[in-house]
Amino acid sequence: MSASVIGIGLVGYGYWGPNLARASTETEGCRLAAVADFSEQARARAAKRHPGIALHAHWRELIADAAVDAVVIATPVHTHFDIALAALKAGKHVLVEKPMTRSAQEAAILIEEAARRSRVLMVDHTFVYTPAVQKIRDLMVEGVLGDVFYYDSTRINLGLFQTDVNVIWDLAVHDLAILDFLMGCTPSAISATGARHVAGRPENTAHLTLYYPSGTIAHLNVNWLAPVKIRRTLIGGSRRMVVWDDLEPSEKIKVYDRGVTVAGNAEQLRDILVSYRSGDMWSPQLSSREALLTEMEHFAACIRENAVPLTDGRSGLDVVSMLESASLSLAERGRPVEFENLRRAS
Amino acid sequence: MSASVIGIGLVGYGYWGPNLARASTETEGCRLAAVADFSEQARARAAKRHPGIALHAHWRELIADAAVDAVVIATPVHTHFDIALAALKAGKHVLVEKPMTRSAQEAAILIEEAARRSRVLMVDHTFVYTPAVQKIRDLMVEGVLGDVFYYDSTRINLGLFQTDVNVIWDLAVHDLAILDFLMGCTPSAISATGARHVAGRPENTAHLTLYYPSGTIAHLNVNWLAPVKIRRTLIGGSRRMVVWDDLEPSEKIKVYDRGVTVAGNAEQLRDILVSYRSGDMWSPQLSSREALLTEMEHFAACIRENAVPLTDGRSGLDVVSMLESASLSLAERGRPVEFENLRRAS
Amino acid sequence: MSASVIGIGLVGYGYWGPNLARASTETEGCRLAAVADFSEQARARAAKRHPGIALHAHWRELIADAAVDAVVIATPVHTHFDIALAALKAGKHVLVEKPMTRSAQEAAILIEEAARRSRVLMVDHTFVYTPAVQKIRDLMVEGVLGDVFYYDSTRINLGLFQTDVNVIWDLAVHDLAILDFLMGCTPSAISATGARHVAGRPENTAHLTLYYPSGTIAHLNVNWLAPVKIRRTLIGGSRRMVVWDDLEPSEKIKVYDRGVTVAGNAEQLRDILVSYRSGDMWSPQLSSREALLTEMEHFAACIRENAVPLTDGRSGLDVVSMLESASLSLAERGRPVEFENLRRAS
Amino acid sequence: MSASVIGIGLVGYGYWGPNLARASTETEGCRLAAVADFSEQARARAAKRHPGIALHAHWRELIADAAVDAVVIATPVHTHFDIALAALKAGKHVLVEKPMTRSAQEAAILIEEAARRSRVLMVDHTFVYTPAVQKIRDLMVEGVLGDVFYYDSTRINLGLFQTDVNVIWDLAVHDLAILDFLMGCTPSAISATGARHVAGRPENTAHLTLYYPSGTIAHLNVNWLAPVKIRRTLIGGSRRMVVWDDLEPSEKIKVYDRGVTVAGNAEQLRDILVSYRSGDMWSPQLSSREALLTEMEHFAACIRENAVPLTDGRSGLDVVSMLESASLSLAERGRPVEFENLRRAS
Repeated sequence: MSASVIGIGLVGYGYWGPNLARASTETEGCRLAAVADFSEQARARAAKRHPGIALHAHWRELIADAAVDAVVIATPVHTHFDIALAALKAGKHVLVEKPMTRSAQEAAILIEEAARRSRVLMVDHTFVYTPAVQKIRDLMVEGVLGDVFYYDSTRINLGLFQTDVNVIWDLAVHDLAILDFLMGCTPSAISATGARHVAGRPENTAHLTLYYPSGTIAHLNVNWLAPVKIRRTLIGGSRRMVVWDDLEPSEKIKVYDRGVTVAGNAEQLRDILVSYRSGDMWSPQLSSREALLTEMEHFAACIRENAVPLTDGRSGLDVVSMLESASLSLAERGRPVEFENLRRAS
Repeated sequence: MSASVIGIGLVGYGYWGPNLARASTETEGCRLAAVADFSEQARARAAKRHPGIALHAHWRELIADAAVDAVVIATPVHTHFDIALAALKAGKHVLVEKPMTRSAQEAAILIEEAARRSRVLMVDHTFVYTPAVQKIRDLMVEGVLGDVFYYDSTRINLGLFQTDVNVIWDLAVHDLAILDFLMGCTPSAISATGARHVAGRPENTAHLTLYYPSGTIAHLNVNWLAPVKIRRTLIGGSRRMVVWDDLEPSEKIKVYDRGVTVAGNAEQLRDILVSYRSGDMWSPQLSSREALLTEMEHFAACIRENAVPLTDGRSGLDVVSMLESASLSLAERGRPVEFENLRRAS
Repeated sequence: MSASVIGIGLVGYGYWGPNLARASTETEGCRLAAVADFSEQARARAAKRHPGIALHAHWRELIADAAVDAVVIATPVHTHFDIALAALKAGKHVLVEKPMTRSAQEAAILIEEAARRSRVLMVDHTFVYTPAVQKIRDLMVEGVLGDVFYYDSTRINLGLFQTDVNVIWDLAVHDLAILDFLMGCTPSAISATGARHVAGRPENTAHLTLYYPSGTIAHLNVNWLAPVKIRRTLIGGSRRMVVWDDLEPSEKIKVYDRGVTVAGNAEQLRDILVSYRSGDMWSPQLSSREALLTEMEHFAACIRENAVPLTDGRSGLDVVSMLESASLSLAERGRPVEFENLRRAS
Repeated sequence: MSASVIGIGLVGYGYWGPNLARASTETEGCRLAAVADFSEQARARAAKRHPGIALHAHWRELIADAAVDAVVIATPVHTHFDIALAALKAGKHVLVEKPMTRSAQEAAILIEEAARRSRVLMVDHTFVYTPAVQKIRDLMVEGVLGDVFYYDSTRINLGLFQTDVNVIWDLAVHDLAILDFLMGCTPSAISATGARHVAGRPENTAHLTLYYPSGTIAHLNVNWLAPVKIRRTLIGGSRRMVVWDDLEPSEKIKVYDRGVTVAGNAEQLRDILVSYRSGDMWSPQLSSREALLTEMEHFAACIRENAVPLTDGRSGLDVVSMLESASLSLAERGRPVEFENLRRAS
């Protein structure tokens, strides 16, 4: 491996792959060395945009390519495990698309393999690297929000029906990755409901409730069959509350100085115990930096410095575990599923 | 009872009572005959706005008042049953605030009593009488929406903490009454999740999923602790979809000619089976008539014509049953509760 | 005149009069003593809502009524002068609806008469007493906005066609009153354009530009024939900018930390001279107090303390002068009219 | 010139040029043959994105290039005339960026030259080719709107200060081009007001009123110094009204069935003469096709078929004439300028 420049090998040049390819070329200390895709058309498109890179029909060839130091995987979910495992075994660093794997079991094996070989294993939880989510995390860490009461997300639109995964694996995965970052721990139980409205297709609408040990409750509303597009999350804290509207061009985050004040004196009349606080609203200016570039730089830095990424294998495992639990609950009309792969807040 | 004018006796002159009093005076064929309230201040306010009416300190006196033909009940939920039962037994017609009673059992007794005495028993499910809900019902009945896939409501704001009922009994009750009217049947199961964030207070945030026999799924998101006010419902059908934003001053209802088209030929490739349809949007002009006046006229007409109200005792019972089931599920973190008081679509 | 309670006599119980009547009854130190209206129906409505007050068919009787200390005038514009003059001559204080009079000449006579008799003469420029306008004034006075570059207002809706006054006298009058308060001086010139689209009716759409000596430019867009209602004003300053949307229920005022920074060094390249500043947005919580009550209290306080109202006769005269100049310019397709009744910033 | 493929030569590879280059490559029947730019960096960028094209340091070389059949000009306004005239004299077709020229006189010379040589002369009034403007034109032509009473546009944002042209030449030019297309004639008079707030810079805020012979009045509000971005146009007709919000992602055009109805009987009372009509709103689905591609195809088709473009030299001349008149009026604080280059509705 070259001391100065990391050779990136990208597997999968379909919908998301071209963005990862572009980000690789725009990241200092990286170069796009190779692309693999079964499709000849996809390889041709890659060649046109990135003349000079190596092209492989099979990902095994790419992994064997000595110019490749790190493998970026942007293929369908069910193929993540085999490719990532082979890459790690070949001594490559790995950045894998979300969801990390089909199952928590697969995720655990990848984590173990990466640890054994001291390779960086990172999951592409892109939202974690957006200025909006970073700002929310700051507001939480600095105590601006106080105790977090709830996280309530609506992520709906007229979306592409997937054939192999349901709307939870496709849309809720974003919120689960964000929650994993913001909460720093896993929930203790999950309840999920939903329905399929096209025969023979997976669930196209779903609602998840996550119970956290701290008392925080998270709720996700995802839907492929909505007439309008909504990307809005409310975060209610004891001190302040946030509305994050990701479709707002210039005021994505609004911080409200609103909430309830609870009087401590139980002797007082019931009406006095809870009073309302309604104050100013503040919308911080956010950086317009593209999340994918921030993420790719972070990947490169972790490789150079042998550091643990923000969205490491454990995060990927957490998210996959939540998806598994939610799917189980969904099949049983909301029956709560206790969370087994519990990670506690550090 | 006077052949021409119905004497209305109002019990409870607190938050909502004055609106019912005003509506009584503005409804042809009705007159406000009496008001009862334990509070002297409340009676004084009633006297100032409605000089000439009889004032009673206790509702039993009002029921005994010969000038009262119909009793309108706007008191706390736990008192509805006693007052309504006494009024029916005294041969009065009854319009009772929602939720109808504390329990389905109480509701059933009132229904029986009203039937035995051939009195009108109506529940104040006000939203059913709004031009918006009437329009949605028309769109469903006329087949404009096609099969109804889902009903998804968000009803949140920084609201008054109740001391005796949780956010489901306070806010979700509106959607349950609307659903009872729109669907014409009860759900087969309910799952509910939620949390309390103020110690010693009832749940302030909750999410309900209702499974209907037809495959329709309804989801309600209610919250007393939100920094912004939202009153928005999406209704997804196989032919068209509706967005109902009740805070929009002039375009409350938008009908989208959008959805999915499913090809019937299973031989075709999977990607062709589901395609998207994206067409015009249309916002029908709605009447600006106040729902409460429409409702009061309907009450008067039912009394005169001995007819069954749109929101009769059975509707009230359905809604209370749903609230009971939801509360049960809420206490068990979403475990689905099979619905026992099943009413089938007629 | 009673030392403690001011007797209010209201002339005109049509569209706006009932609000002034209600405000009179709700203001400490005032009582509604009498109402005059030519219409018997209007008097009957007043009697029903305010039992016990004196009713007069002609305003001359009301002015002669000894129980009346102050006359509030809510009649058509062309009658303001006669009524106000008679009231002042009878020694009454006067609060007159906007626009104050038909002409600046009439306004000047009223100012002189009030001064001679030491009576309070106040104009009902209601917007000046709103929390939003008060907040904007504070932001200007405290230097938060810096130099005010422009005031740009859009005030349009599907409105009632007036028969005797055009859209400038009906809608732009609000902005002219606000500007008179915010700027503390009159413009040096006015240009106005517009059109009438219903034959035989006054202009229903108009655009005014006001040039201020300080370099501030104000622009008003008023329209009775718009399909949507807009009430939005932008105020651009050298340090910060404001968007005031009066239809926003809870975030009427937004303050943007945005603008241009001009480098002082003329040696630098032209592109460096002007750079952009884009920062946070902040929406201050505003009081929800009704402007009319604040205004009526102010009227009472001015009477008791013999003080000059915020919206005194001079403000009324300024606004009428601007309306006259604008009408003149409008008739000549925008030809700028130099402003004669110039008042300088104090 | 090749019978099948038109060789495009692009002069100016700065801000807008790259879009024209890309559109050239994506348009059937066209190929990007050459790019000219004084800047070596710009040429390098062009070479990287479009390998294989000819690069010229001076536009005169490009015009002399035999592979170039049509010259596309995307340079500063003051250079348009020289380049376009040279290109036409060399027998090339020309597509020139807006505004077409510095003066109406220059525009007239280009029109004459193109006519003499039977070359296509087209101006890049891009908005004319958007689905939104095409839909509005259809609504007008089909009589859906009735008589057009007004066109009222707000086009503001925190924009780049230009050094050589004011905000009218930069922003209002869009609306003038749209109006030229929609109205099919020129106004009879223009009044413009505005101000400069940065010393030594051109006007950064301006308001234009255009008087049309038909009675239609158009009003444009343009501003480089606004804290928020607005792109909204209202079009009021006697039968229906349109709101066009170009920033709306999916409902750019809304058609309101609202307006006034004027009774013909002058004997009737004044209040009956004008009554209100408030009906449904309808938002037609628009094509998502990129305007620039539609425009480039149209340019190619006009060349092949020797046809007159929608946005021909005459349109360019009209727009430049309006800009000249507006600038004249602006300098005199709104004094109306009679329009000399009058074109009547055909």
